[in-house]
Amino acid sequence: MTERTVYLNGSFVLESEAKVSILDSGFRSGDGVYDATRTFGHKLFKLRDHVERLYRSLTYTRIDCGLSLDEMERLSIEVVERNLHILGDDDEYTLWQVISRGVPAAAGYANGSSATVSIFCVPVDFTRFARNYVEGVELVTPSTRRIPPQCLEAKAKITNKMNHMVAAFEARNVNPRAVPLMLDIDGNVAETLITNFFFVSDGRVCTPTNKNVLGGITRSNVLSLTSKMGIELVEGDFTPYDVYNADEAFLTGTSGSIEPVRDLNGVAIGDVIPGPITGRLMREWNELVGIDVVAQALRHLTDEDRERLLARWETLS
Amino acid sequence: MTERTVYLNGSFVLESEAKVSILDSGFRSGDGVYDATRTFGHKLFKLRDHVERLYRSLTYTRIDCGLSLDEMERLSIEVVERNLHILGDDDEYTLWQVISRGVPAAAGYANGSSATVSIFCVPVDFTRFARNYVEGVELVTPSTRRIPPQCLEAKAKITNKMNHMVAAFEARNVNPRAVPLMLDIDGNVAETLITNFFFVSDGRVCTPTNKNVLGGITRSNVLSLTSKMGIELVEGDFTPYDVYNADEAFLTGTSGSIEPVRDLNGVAIGDVIPGPITGRLMREWNELVGIDVVAQALRHLTDEDRERLLARWETLS
Amino acid sequence: MTERTVYLNGSFVLESEAKVSILDSGFRSGDGVYDATRTFGHKLFKLRDHVERLYRSLTYTRIDCGLSLDEMERLSIEVVERNLHILGDDDEYTLWQVISRGVPAAAGYANGSSATVSIFCVPVDFTRFARNYVEGVELVTPSTRRIPPQCLEAKAKITNKMNHMVAAFEARNVNPRAVPLMLDIDGNVAETLITNFFFVSDGRVCTPTNKNVLGGITRSNVLSLTSKMGIELVEGDFTPYDVYNADEAFLTGTSGSIEPVRDLNGVAIGDVIPGPITGRLMREWNELVGIDVVAQALRHLTDEDRERLLARWETLS
Amino acid sequence: MTERTVYLNGSFVLESEAKVSILDSGFRSGDGVYDATRTFGHKLFKLRDHVERLYRSLTYTRIDCGLSLDEMERLSIEVVERNLHILGDDDEYTLWQVISRGVPAAAGYANGSSATVSIFCVPVDFTRFARNYVEGVELVTPSTRRIPPQCLEAKAKITNKMNHMVAAFEARNVNPRAVPLMLDIDGNVAETLITNFFFVSDGRVCTPTNKNVLGGITRSNVLSLTSKMGIELVEGDFTPYDVYNADEAFLTGTSGSIEPVRDLNGVAIGDVIPGPITGRLMREWNELVGIDVVAQALRHLTDEDRERLLARWETLS
Amino acid sequence: MTERTVYLNGSFVLESEAKVSILDSGFRSGDGVYDATRTFGHKLFKLRDHVERLYRSLTYTRIDCGLSLDEMERLSIEVVERNLHILGDDDEYTLWQVISRGVPAAAGYANGSSATVSIFCVPVDFTRFARNYVEGVELVTPSTRRIPPQCLEAKAKITNKMNHMVAAFEARNVNPRAVPLMLDIDGNVAETLITNFFFVSDGRVCTPTNKNVLGGITRSNVLSLTSKMGIELVEGDFTPYDVYNADEAFLTGTSGSIEPVRDLNGVAIGDVIPGPITGRLMREWNELVGIDVVAQALRHLTDEDRERLLARWETLS
Amino acid sequence: MTERTVYLNGSFVLESEAKVSILDSGFRSGDGVYDATRTFGHKLFKLRDHVERLYRSLTYTRIDCGLSLDEMERLSIEVVERNLHILGDDDEYTLWQVISRGVPAAAGYANGSSATVSIFCVPVDFTRFARNYVEGVELVTPSTRRIPPQCLEAKAKITNKMNHMVAAFEARNVNPRAVPLMLDIDGNVAETLITNFFFVSDGRVCTPTNKNVLGGITRSNVLSLTSKMGIELVEGDFTPYDVYNADEAFLTGTSGSIEPVRDLNGVAIGDVIPGPITGRLMREWNELVGIDVVAQALRHLTDEDRERLLARWETLS
Repeated sequence: MTERTVYLNGSFVLESEAKVSILDSGFRSGDGVYDATRTFGHKLFKLRDHVERLYRSLTYTRIDCGLSLDEMERLSIEVVERNLHILGDDDEYTLWQVISRGVPAAAGYANGSSATVSIFCVPVDFTRFARNYVEGVELVTPSTRRIPPQCLEAKAKITNKMNHMVAAFEARNVNPRAVPLMLDIDGNVAETLITNFFFVSDGRVCTPTNKNVLGGITRSNVLSLTSKMGIELVEGDFTPYDVYNADEAFLTGTSGSIEPVRDLNGVAIGDVIPGPITGRLMREWNELVGIDVVAQALRHLTDEDRERLLARWETLS
Repeated sequence: MTERTVYLNGSFVLESEAKVSILDSGFRSGDGVYDATRTFGHKLFKLRDHVERLYRSLTYTRIDCGLSLDEMERLSIEVVERNLHILGDDDEYTLWQVISRGVPAAAGYANGSSATVSIFCVPVDFTRFARNYVEGVELVTPSTRRIPPQCLEAKAKITNKMNHMVAAFEARNVNPRAVPLMLDIDGNVAETLITNFFFVSDGRVCTPTNKNVLGGITRSNVLSLTSKMGIELVEGDFTPYDVYNADEAFLTGTSGSIEPVRDLNGVAIGDVIPGPITGRLMREWNELVGIDVVAQALRHLTDEDRERLLARWETLS
Repeated sequence: MTERTVYLNGSFVLESEAKVSILDSGFRSGDGVYDATRTFGHKLFKLRDHVERLYRSLTYTRIDCGLSLDEMERLSIEVVERNLHILGDDDEYTLWQVISRGVPAAAGYANGSSATVSIFCVPVDFTRFARNYVEGVELVTPSTRRIPPQCLEAKAKITNKMNHMVAAFEARNVNPRAVPLMLDIDGNVAETLITNFFFVSDGRVCTPTNKNVLGGITRSNVLSLTSKMGIELVEGDFTPYDVYNADEAFLTGTSGSIEPVRDLNGVAIGDVIPGPITGRLMREWNELVGIDVVAQALRHLTDEDRERLLARWETLS
Repeated sequence: MTERTVYLNGSFVLESEAKVSILDSGFRSGDGVYDATRTFGHKLFKLRDHVERLYRSLTYTRIDCGLSLDEMERLSIEVVERNLHILGDDDEYTLWQVISRGVPAAAGYANGSSATVSIFCVPVDFTRFARNYVEGVELVTPSTRRIPPQCLEAKAKITNKMNHMVAAFEARNVNPRAVPLMLDIDGNVAETLITNFFFVSDGRVCTPTNKNVLGGITRSNVLSLTSKMGIELVEGDFTPYDVYNADEAFLTGTSGSIEPVRDLNGVAIGDVIPGPITGRLMREWNELVGIDVVAQALRHLTDEDRERLLARWETLS
Repeated sequence: MTERTVYLNGSFVLESEAKVSILDSGFRSGDGVYDATRTFGHKLFKLRDHVERLYRSLTYTRIDCGLSLDEMERLSIEVVERNLHILGDDDEYTLWQVISRGVPAAAGYANGSSATVSIFCVPVDFTRFARNYVEGVELVTPSTRRIPPQCLEAKAKITNKMNHMVAAFEARNVNPRAVPLMLDIDGNVAETLITNFFFVSDGRVCTPTNKNVLGGITRSNVLSLTSKMGIELVEGDFTPYDVYNADEAFLTGTSGSIEPVRDLNGVAIGDVIPGPITGRLMREWNELVGIDVVAQALRHLTDEDRERLLARWETLS
Repeated sequence: MTERTVYLNGSFVLESEAKVSILDSGFRSGDGVYDATRTFGHKLFKLRDHVERLYRSLTYTRIDCGLSLDEMERLSIEVVERNLHILGDDDEYTLWQVISRGVPAAAGYANGSSATVSIFCVPVDFTRFARNYVEGVELVTPSTRRIPPQCLEAKAKITNKMNHMVAAFEARNVNPRAVPLMLDIDGNVAETLITNFFFVSDGRVCTPTNKNVLGGITRSNVLSLTSKMGIELVEGDFTPYDVYNADEAFLTGTSGSIEPVRDLNGVAIGDVIPGPITGRLMREWNELVGIDVVAQALRHLTDEDRERLLARWETLS
């Protein structure tokens, strides 16, 4: 298989040669930001929104990446284009921009250091979440709380994911596939490792405010969808009690789009997966991005369940 | 100048070739830990303590680095030994171990991924802190609070330094050389970017408990020194008020050892720099590590102040 | 120059004779409340709103000032009227009501004590904020947090300003003209020393809820203006990240009306001062109060910048 | 009766003429600090400690009073001396130092403003607390919490007492003589309006740490007494539960010295007032200050209870 | 008088024989949930809403009561029907469902234990609250805070009322009839022992969000009423300051429906009881439930005030 | 088998007849307190300490049980004596005192209500924890936090265990035998469902302060044992990081005495179960109570593991 091409600090290089020094403050200190955009049908979806969020993260962390927002967008598109010919027809890319403050001029973090800018794409690993569409995600609330904004801004995408990682290990102690539904320091439901959280109650779609969660682009798009579909939306402070008693629940994220939830801490949410409103949103999403993301994901399964799950999805849609 | 040698994932390579993939979770997500040990007179000081702390960080983050604690210690020594011949007589090394969870087997963070282990040394940049010994550090309390342990453990050295970086930019807004004295979320004095904080009041040496701060090795050594010198020590919850009214204050860290503080938020701490007890501790420290760290640092200054500062230090010691 | 007249405990006296005992609990303990109203074109603006807020503060602190709300309003007008003849044509007054619980009948704070009621006016010191209109305010987030309402109500105007003063000294450590943008104990943006804070993002005007801030009268008027102008308004919990990434920002207060912000912690907010929406609000404000408050303030500058700044404002309005 | 003399801004004046402008920032904004020392047998007790605490408050609030610590001490003594001849034989003075930032040079709080310094003495009002010695204080925990140090330092004596006043009104709603035992924002027992709190449990004397309370001078002296008497002392975080189940409790303050507590929220503390250890401390205190402070206070009562209470105290001591 | 009949674990028994073992985890550990519905004119009001809330409490606590929601509703109706013949014409029932996890199979709380289900009705004790309708409730904010949802969900009705009981004793220390208006741990107004809280300000009806309070059924009905009546409603975070300065205030609960408030901590709320909007709501409520609940309650008074209070209510309605 | 006898409200009755009304506030509202004491070799251990703690709980909740502390002790002994003849030789009792405020005189909680007092004993269910002695306990930190003392006192034993129950269900989602190690609202390690927590680090025994945990009697006894054995003890604030890096850990409680811990959230604590210091404490404990509690517990196992585990314990002791 041909190797992928990566943009790194002004050049296009092979992925296997796309490396940063161990002295890079991104590697040594997590002194960087990132964003990730997915393709649907080989086309980047809402790239501009992702790049704008990336630049908000740069402003917050005071990293000057040396590129204008337009240049970043153009280079991102070019990275995907250069790698499309080696992407399988039914595969997709997640495009990453990872930017660190770079190698400090000397020891310490001098102001004159120049940033490390990398733009690369990796094929979406559908096997990681394909089953979730018809079997639902198992959520677990870990004891580790989300870092509050007075310490580090939740809305910025910073390459400091250890808070989430520590939480994820707690969830995986229940079940290797379980996903952590993190709470904020007041005990309100916040977000998972890489997705936003929604639930449905009395016909209304509810989601945490953006106070302690990343301002997800998929989250925004789902908010727009619900509005367009005439579904009432509530942004607020919610607790596990609200989720236990919800009629449906789902996650939204760049890779998996909309994934239905099966249970929280072993308490089943609703009777059917996906629930009726979740199902409607999933179908609207497929319309929006122009492909059936569920069927696409399920086709990547290789085990005996593949046909059964595809058939089940067929009956749902 | 001959290039330094680095240990990276089982091999010794030149520093310019010591690189990690942009896909490495250490670069992409800050999914790693680190530690740093200094040489004094070309000898690593308290290496074992640093390695033990590194392994506590590994346990907390559930990273398996694939090396025993003894192997890590031995390799660390070897890295320094391999690079000693290119170190100036009056120079010193800071030895770093930086370990990330590595490149995930596939997209996502699969359990089977193998860690990236790097061990390298960089010359101490004395110019960054030399003047502090006789002129004192300017401290500023930033509005950004230290991440509380219920989110991420302060005692673990994680490559997630953005919380500190954001705080540092606030301090540097006052003065490019100013150092952030971070508070915890209850407003107690915690730590700076890379050092622990102490002050002297009524002849007693006071320092924050290790609740919201890194368990510094230099901090431990200073605690032992004070005990040996018969100085009463108090670990507790302290506020800026306590510091404003202190008789002396100082920072402890791996690179700078013991650095006197001049003021906090513009309020002078004590009348003389270093204060009498700080001065005694600095001299005891020099005994302990076998060299005069202040004179060594000042000798690296190249400007007109060099001789004046050295002379001043002479009168103090 | 003729001396001003002051209302004090039932009489009108010369300002130089308007004094309270050092035993007064207002001086000794900060046991009082206050409010302040400005004239525009020599007319008190929204006096009734200020007096009503004053009486809410009195109710909260259980001080009986012995005057009805109507009497307070009438006396306030009389104080201004008695002093108008000695006010320069281009000058204005800030009218203060300061009321303390008074001199306790005996030592301690007996219930029978009678309040000290003072009503006085001081000329607006335009030089303190005139430059801000065209150069913008430099904001700094101090480490000191606003007192939470469970300790002391933020909506009440109490003569206990040390929380703000301590914060102001932190900001002035950056720059003598810098203004503290205080955060609440959760790290949300709250208010400055004497003004409310607003920012503009995506065409919407955003401001903290009135949970941890004074319920400013100018703030209320600006909310009405935005509503009248068809600009969407969001009251919520906001963080420094939101401000760093804002398009514009401004302060509102009794003396300065609407002052544009230049930067927060050294990060520039927007490209131009004032930003387009801030500028529109400033011009609407001038309509509302009947004078050009910016030109008026700039005319009080005495240095060489005066003409340049006036010319700049000309081009803006 | 002859009038008392007061030190005010460099002069000695009659108390009735000792006044500050209504423009003084101490009156207008509570922008000041204070301290208070009592005489016992017409001699100021521990004046130096009080003056040192006053100067710590000045440092914290950045007020320059223009006098050295020695001058302040000397003037304080002089104020008492000048007023001793008009003090009844069985009366005592509380000496106050109240210092504000003064009248601002212009509107706003310019740095060049000069402080208002007042030193005065008022006779101790024994009737306010005399009965407490034999009948005990009724404590009530108000809902209002003590201001946390991250907002305003509890150890500094600032003329911002509204937090305490609001709490006192809650307690007085139970009973006009009831005293508020304030909790900190974590719900730990802190302090009352003007005294520190102690209780006795299993023979040990317990008191809140100085984290959220004023560092009382009487408190310090009582700590020394217990140590001298061989009583174990515990400084820690305590809750109402600890107090309800205590064997004894008492308050310490400048005016009342040591006052036994009768109950908390209506739950009686111990069987007898004062409890045995409290009683011993009260007697030791009398030794220390050289007079029987209880008998002195009771002699000031004028009602029919006077003889009964004196007799009761006789049997206790 | 004939005895009432109770449903207990599948049977109908006499109330005097309706007992649970002392080993029952409901008695031993408070390991249960409950709900309560009132009759108006001998008809259960909004029973379905109460039963649905009961089942949300069961889901949260993971108690399986062994009955469907429909069966619970049917049995509840039957319990009332079986007891109607012994209810006085002017009396009403409160129907309780109390469900515990039951007697553990062995020591400890094994999963196989079967729940204790009791359904019973008790006559409403009108004398407990009748006077409140015309004299108003005295509220007191206790120092004890409501348990936050990250510890135990406020929206669930759990047989763990000690938090409220401890608060109630604080209020009763002021006055045996006083009612505790509990604050949440941020100091916001939450709820009383058994009712929700509302106040009226500037013509708007305000009430705490359902974050830290029980989601009262009467509360919901009052929200609907205000909406129907065209009164603006605000759900938010409110403080005692807001209540002190309110125009009116009232409580809502299953037994008392809508009870006007007289004062908070001794500060009178409004001039007249009930206030005009409260009065309108009370009359609308009477329409809704089909009887005059105030007159009914007052008729149960036996003292000399009965006629006076009834006459007063007459003039109000 | 003969039935046990129970003390209930002044009489001794058969356990099957020991019942409380469903109207009892203990059953309906969790309005009660309790304590539990174990026998070792058929003798109650430290009964007086348990009864004293029970009375502290009664004081806090203001329940008057109508019995003196001595009477409660005497009746407790009598209950055990009356039931000893039906206890197996190798069995033991846990004696419970459960006291509720009782059936209210009328609806509501009138002050005149008389308490329900029950004293009963149940055989210790050794099978519930026997394996833990040699296999260790699996701990899980649930997301549910311990109720803070400002809401409900952790030191009081109140029949309000739902906070713990909800946490236990989270732990059991990992593994039915897993035990919840609850954190306080600051994220410090607190306690489990029914035991206190200890760990060993660097030869020192560490345990949370009694701030957010029950003041366990076994905990106190273990503290005394460590002191007697010359082992350093640290009471403080600890986090999961401290536990992950501990050398050993164990639980203490009335039923299980000292139970070694195997892991926390899947991270193994130490290499051997029990660890050396834990093992020493277990053997000292056996000395103290006069029987080998481990062997006794293991003898109650009925499965094939019984002999193997007994043999393993043999080698350890």
